[in-house]
Amino acid sequence: MALGDDWFVEEAPEADMALGLKVREKLADEHSAYQHIEIYETESFGRLMVIDGCVMLTDRDNFVYHEMMAHAALFTHPDPKRVAIIGGGDCGTLREVLKHPNVEHVVQIDIDEAVTRLSQQFFPELCESNVDPRAELMFRDGIRWIEDAEADSLDVIIVDSTDPVGPGEVLFTSKFYRACRRALGERGVLVQQSESPLLHTRILKKMHADLHAAGFSTTACLSFPQPTYPSGWWSATLAGPAVTEFREQDAAEKEFVTRYYTASVHRGALALPAFVAEALATA
Amino acid sequence: MALGDDWFVEEAPEADMALGLKVREKLADEHSAYQHIEIYETESFGRLMVIDGCVMLTDRDNFVYHEMMAHAALFTHPDPKRVAIIGGGDCGTLREVLKHPNVEHVVQIDIDEAVTRLSQQFFPELCESNVDPRAELMFRDGIRWIEDAEADSLDVIIVDSTDPVGPGEVLFTSKFYRACRRALGERGVLVQQSESPLLHTRILKKMHADLHAAGFSTTACLSFPQPTYPSGWWSATLAGPAVTEFREQDAAEKEFVTRYYTASVHRGALALPAFVAEALATA
Repeated sequence: MALGDDWFVEEAPEADMALGLKVREKLADEHSAYQHIEIYETESFGRLMVIDGCVMLTDRDNFVYHEMMAHAALFTHPDPKRVAIIGGGDCGTLREVLKHPNVEHVVQIDIDEAVTRLSQQFFPELCESNVDPRAELMFRDGIRWIEDAEADSLDVIIVDSTDPVGPGEVLFTSKFYRACRRALGERGVLVQQSESPLLHTRILKKMHADLHAAGFSTTACLSFPQPTYPSGWWSATLAGPAVTEFREQDAAEKEFVTRYYTASVHRGALALPAFVAEALATA
Repeated sequence: MALGDDWFVEEAPEADMALGLKVREKLADEHSAYQHIEIYETESFGRLMVIDGCVMLTDRDNFVYHEMMAHAALFTHPDPKRVAIIGGGDCGTLREVLKHPNVEHVVQIDIDEAVTRLSQQFFPELCESNVDPRAELMFRDGIRWIEDAEADSLDVIIVDSTDPVGPGEVLFTSKFYRACRRALGERGVLVQQSESPLLHTRILKKMHADLHAAGFSTTACLSFPQPTYPSGWWSATLAGPAVTEFREQDAAEKEFVTRYYTASVHRGALALPAFVAEALATA
């Protein structure tokens, strides 16, 4: 069956499934030095950013992903002051991180300046905190940056990257995790987007094994809905000294507004579906 | 953009979004007295049942829905012995209910016998408990059946229905909820599939208001992923005397196997995303 020309369609070939979003018009189409970036105005999901054919975000549902990527890790670390975001060029995660008053410095390292420029133009609300004096935006290779970082110089690393194919692949390796572990020291917390629990169980399993091998003593998987990502079901993986617990009372008493994240939602997202628990138990 | 003829596509017109599943072949196509039922063999989701163009279930992901529809309500009631399922003709919810040893009798009332016949043929594992002596399958109007039921004659009612448009619409009304309340008495628990928290927040809000108006003293919303339903994010609504609590220890010590549901997952599913909590607080 066919959807007309007024639909954006992303196929997830590994699952033989596809997501369609009806669009009004294409607002931008740019081949940067690194990737193909498209921006659409959709009928019901607001604006849509697509990179190399994959949905990155829409106005309507990005809050779930960005809040889960930022707040879970920041409420897991006892006192996060120094944060690095690898990727995250749309600046949505950065905005959430900056809601935490104890954060003193956040550096966002995305290789592709075009993503941030287009986000500033078409998703201005995601970029509203870019002017925060605590924020530093760098456009270079995040892996090299982490490798060059001083030992024990970061409290939280957030890996807000594309999928583990193509340029994002190296972000899902033991070598990268060891560099993160070194930059984080004993107390630091890593969080990384970790694909669909249903479609990519094997990737999840490998990640947990690789993180342990890189020296992280505990790992945890947070699952949450993400309607415009393949299967509508996504996850983030935490690694650090005690990531199955978090500052629950601080989260419950937070003084900033969220639309998805709450302390109870964080606790609930840590509850693994039976089949995921089983897969990770043997990781 | 077009998907080829080898794709099944469901459009969710209320959200201008669409789900595609690549199919190998169509296995059945039947116009029953009530609806149009299709069965496909998909490439990666096993078999697929479609009613009136909407995905009802696939082999790969139906476990999430069926487990959440059955176990949450049964572990909420203090001692469920008498259960009625309205709809649920594929028998997947029935199978889960019958895993509870304290259940003495389950009646499934689906108006369309063709759904059950096709499920027996193409989804035999969902029907494996149909021969349980505690199970009774009836093919008639479930609303009339509930209206005619004796007062205080049921412990749990599970409304496993289609969407609140067309024939399913009457299942989302105060009149139906009052009939359920009467059949359940003071201690009984109702659970009903309640659409997507993201796409159908208004339906959820109205349901909670209507359930309270029908005499249920507490309501709760469980949310969970459901990859092949619109937005990949679904919910079930509970109503009864104390549905925000459940027999957590019994759930943790259950002696049957589940693939999604656990006691912690149940607790987590009760944690409302901030925007849903806000919507329901003003219901």
